[in-house]
Amino acid sequence: MRRLSKNGQRGRKTRTSQDGGADLNHEISCVLQGQCRTGRKGKGWKTCESPQAYHPQSSSEAIAILVLANHILANEHFLDGFGHVSIRDPEQPGNFFLSRSLAPELVTADDILRLTLEGDVVGEDTRRPYLEKFIHAEVYRARPDVQAVIHGHPLSVIAMSAINVPVVPVFHMAGALGSGVPVFDAYDPENGTLTRTSEEGRRLADCLGQHTALLMRNHGAVIAAGNMAEAVMTALALRDNCTIQMQCLSAGVAPSALSPALARAAAALNFSQNPLFRAWNYWISRLPQPQ
Amino acid sequence: MRRLSKNGQRGRKTRTSQDGGADLNHEISCVLQGQCRTGRKGKGWKTCESPQAYHPQSSSEAIAILVLANHILANEHFLDGFGHVSIRDPEQPGNFFLSRSLAPELVTADDILRLTLEGDVVGEDTRRPYLEKFIHAEVYRARPDVQAVIHGHPLSVIAMSAINVPVVPVFHMAGALGSGVPVFDAYDPENGTLTRTSEEGRRLADCLGQHTALLMRNHGAVIAAGNMAEAVMTALALRDNCTIQMQCLSAGVAPSALSPALARAAAALNFSQNPLFRAWNYWISRLPQPQ
Amino acid sequence: MRRLSKNGQRGRKTRTSQDGGADLNHEISCVLQGQCRTGRKGKGWKTCESPQAYHPQSSSEAIAILVLANHILANEHFLDGFGHVSIRDPEQPGNFFLSRSLAPELVTADDILRLTLEGDVVGEDTRRPYLEKFIHAEVYRARPDVQAVIHGHPLSVIAMSAINVPVVPVFHMAGALGSGVPVFDAYDPENGTLTRTSEEGRRLADCLGQHTALLMRNHGAVIAAGNMAEAVMTALALRDNCTIQMQCLSAGVAPSALSPALARAAAALNFSQNPLFRAWNYWISRLPQPQ
Amino acid sequence: MRRLSKNGQRGRKTRTSQDGGADLNHEISCVLQGQCRTGRKGKGWKTCESPQAYHPQSSSEAIAILVLANHILANEHFLDGFGHVSIRDPEQPGNFFLSRSLAPELVTADDILRLTLEGDVVGEDTRRPYLEKFIHAEVYRARPDVQAVIHGHPLSVIAMSAINVPVVPVFHMAGALGSGVPVFDAYDPENGTLTRTSEEGRRLADCLGQHTALLMRNHGAVIAAGNMAEAVMTALALRDNCTIQMQCLSAGVAPSALSPALARAAAALNFSQNPLFRAWNYWISRLPQPQ
Repeated sequence: MRRLSKNGQRGRKTRTSQDGGADLNHEISCVLQGQCRTGRKGKGWKTCESPQAYHPQSSSEAIAILVLANHILANEHFLDGFGHVSIRDPEQPGNFFLSRSLAPELVTADDILRLTLEGDVVGEDTRRPYLEKFIHAEVYRARPDVQAVIHGHPLSVIAMSAINVPVVPVFHMAGALGSGVPVFDAYDPENGTLTRTSEEGRRLADCLGQHTALLMRNHGAVIAAGNMAEAVMTALALRDNCTIQMQCLSAGVAPSALSPALARAAAALNFSQNPLFRAWNYWISRLPQPQ
Repeated sequence: MRRLSKNGQRGRKTRTSQDGGADLNHEISCVLQGQCRTGRKGKGWKTCESPQAYHPQSSSEAIAILVLANHILANEHFLDGFGHVSIRDPEQPGNFFLSRSLAPELVTADDILRLTLEGDVVGEDTRRPYLEKFIHAEVYRARPDVQAVIHGHPLSVIAMSAINVPVVPVFHMAGALGSGVPVFDAYDPENGTLTRTSEEGRRLADCLGQHTALLMRNHGAVIAAGNMAEAVMTALALRDNCTIQMQCLSAGVAPSALSPALARAAAALNFSQNPLFRAWNYWISRLPQPQ
Repeated sequence: MRRLSKNGQRGRKTRTSQDGGADLNHEISCVLQGQCRTGRKGKGWKTCESPQAYHPQSSSEAIAILVLANHILANEHFLDGFGHVSIRDPEQPGNFFLSRSLAPELVTADDILRLTLEGDVVGEDTRRPYLEKFIHAEVYRARPDVQAVIHGHPLSVIAMSAINVPVVPVFHMAGALGSGVPVFDAYDPENGTLTRTSEEGRRLADCLGQHTALLMRNHGAVIAAGNMAEAVMTALALRDNCTIQMQCLSAGVAPSALSPALARAAAALNFSQNPLFRAWNYWISRLPQPQ
Repeated sequence: MRRLSKNGQRGRKTRTSQDGGADLNHEISCVLQGQCRTGRKGKGWKTCESPQAYHPQSSSEAIAILVLANHILANEHFLDGFGHVSIRDPEQPGNFFLSRSLAPELVTADDILRLTLEGDVVGEDTRRPYLEKFIHAEVYRARPDVQAVIHGHPLSVIAMSAINVPVVPVFHMAGALGSGVPVFDAYDPENGTLTRTSEEGRRLADCLGQHTALLMRNHGAVIAAGNMAEAVMTALALRDNCTIQMQCLSAGVAPSALSPALARAAAALNFSQNPLFRAWNYWISRLPQPQ
């Protein structure tokens, strides 16, 4: 991986910026150094207590957050060589950012593409995005409230998707699952559970509705949230919730779940500023140091 | 994380000391260097064979032990970005120490707050403690014998809390669970399973009674013990006990448990000086070295 | 492990080359440096975006790929101290390469032996190959389409082999299992489930038929694929598929599986160039750096 | 941990040697450097292809092997802060070596005590051995063929010990379990499942009989073997066998097991020189480097 230079300068401009002059890596440094303390691990990554930590005000801040999210989701074992995460462009809400087809833990700012809600790459960039870009495009189109989308394949999530039992929130971190977790399986047979068309993406977004998470039968999960920290927190909670629920089912017991009131209250607390900052900075502090 | 300087000196005084002059990091060094040998890993952390290793005689020793316990519980995967551990002040038993709201593996002596049994931060410190501080405050109030309290969320513990099966001690390390492990679920619905009031804290302490551990339904566990080494040992044993018990239930068998006599004898042996020292120094030797 | 020198030169010739002059480590360097970018981890290992990455054109390229595959399969926990991987020689399809009897994560190019389809080591090399070399020899003999064979013992695979339930593809990465996964148990009693004769190897190859994977009852698995990247991808997918399927069975539910059409489409997509390259380079990027 | 000096010399004599002059650390170096190649990891630990690797000819070689076994069993997660391993003295078969009470991964040659079959420490050494030394003493007394004994507490082993289902060999590495794995539970109630008397040790040795492994109900396992490599291999196989067997039981199926003939053949093959060397050197190559 190319290392970010110390002063954030690079020889060439990034291809993802439309405005012609921004050095995005410089922006990443700035965003992440404002009001920061250095994490215990991860000399190259910075924690941040500014409101911009996961609420981008600009395209370049969004890209910085997206690069971090790729590394966090790989490091926390939600993504491996496959799976992907995207962020809506706060400057042009009809666009979103997504890496070129690459294992998430290898993603740098240079790998980020700008896409439209049709799933087209903007500009002359010829690098390939992920085949499943339509998941992201159609969720952003259907849900103006969504700023971040994650798609991954933890084993416990796939297991839950393969048995005919609804996900229920079995612990407080999963409050956001309290409204229900639909299961999508209206696949185009020729695409092998991959969402490779706008039409299939639209069916998936319809299935998601106003929920935060959706299972894809025999495949994985999609998380759609109001900011990247909520999305990551929900992704990890969904995975752990499926682990716990599967364990309870194995013990022969349908587990108790949070009541709707408890789930709503838990979600509101989890998504308030203090827990999100604590979690976001914790994840960053655990990142391996870039070499 | 700020690194402890070699001679234990720092420029500014810590905010947690009430007596106006103690350099707590100096005390940490002293406590931990007395009669010590260096662990294999963890150059920055010291093992200690003095009785002060987990029996603090002073506020500053208590803080040193609390910082270590934060790192041990994170490193042994009992705590992650959430959960917390506290210690009673041996000099002022109506106070206890708890970190500001921060992921445990990032906690340093500078992050430690002093709280009263009402859950108020002492002095002019405006940093936020954990929302669930009332768990600690009310357990210390109800149980003068308790010197250390841990609250965490291992998945196996949550799974056991969600099925209607009592925890029984299935192995010798869990002797302290022999008197029973009550399950708390008298939550205020508006707080989403978090204990955010003295009243809920009091209900939880009532539910704990004279036991060493309690499950919080769909949430986690609370451990309350006579010193920090007993608390950590019981936390890890509770987690492993839940793992084993869930596995046996999955195999379709209610496992054999320690008889009350065996459990009492096991607890007495586990909590004798030699095993506690062995375990405490082992946990320290495994800590990653501060950078 | 001896480290590859920077310029790929070594004092002595390798014993695996038949043509008398090639320095195979030089070739490894060349293969792996052509059109490469350095992975984040693994300074000593190179990712490669050339078609030669896992499609060897020469004996020496095949050996380079085989060394990488040994390290990848150990690092991804498919192999441990036992198990093995081989590759057919593209220059002499009646030969294949296999390490001398050695834990896979310790294998270097110097450890690679050349074997015939009778399982004999070619040349004067007296070092011992793995006892189970006949698995490889007989699969290559029966299946001209197979270029790479893996044999390993993940616990979930052994568990599935020990219960009377067929493996079905429960997620998209396991599309190649859609044609079925036969279970071999026609062991010679005197060899303790090890395949130590051509005859037993032939029975095993018969049992495999045209499938991509086979379970060995109470022992492990064999994967046979058209190139090394497909073989590694299928090995990891088989292991994870068994984990998921066992979890579903534990929950008391026979899981839904990919339909034959979905499985075929998933296999075709997984084995197309882009996913294979992404996965291959991801695995390489995760390798620990040689010391 | 004190580091072995480069030339194996140390200022003071070890307390474990009875002959007054041997520098055991020097011997460790010699044993481990004869006919060695350096492992990939673990610069400080040496692999060894001499027959002395796990067949000690002298007391000092036995101690060298015992130190290695402590680190291997910790590194492979069979032992943690508790559990222990011993070796019979080939020079004085009525004595055996065991560490003072210490977490296995911290053990050095200086920590090794010499004990009699009565469980008494030989000489003036006042350091405390493990309380459960009587397990080792009585197994060595009852079984002249046994040269190495391991006692540990993997969770899967405890789970199997707590359900009323016999261990059967479900994979080829567990061939040595084919004669049966008795379950001991004739505990003295006052010792909380710890074997703290010769009498209880004798009952345990009676229960073990001529088998290689025994479960202690609600506690752990004892492995007794003809050399240290066989003991370690059987310990790891027992743990994995219990994991697999529990998984099969959870799936609702009593798994198929190796037939007696297959188990005998598998044990004979596993315990032949080539697999033992491969495994022993693999375990050493994985040890973290002493600091």
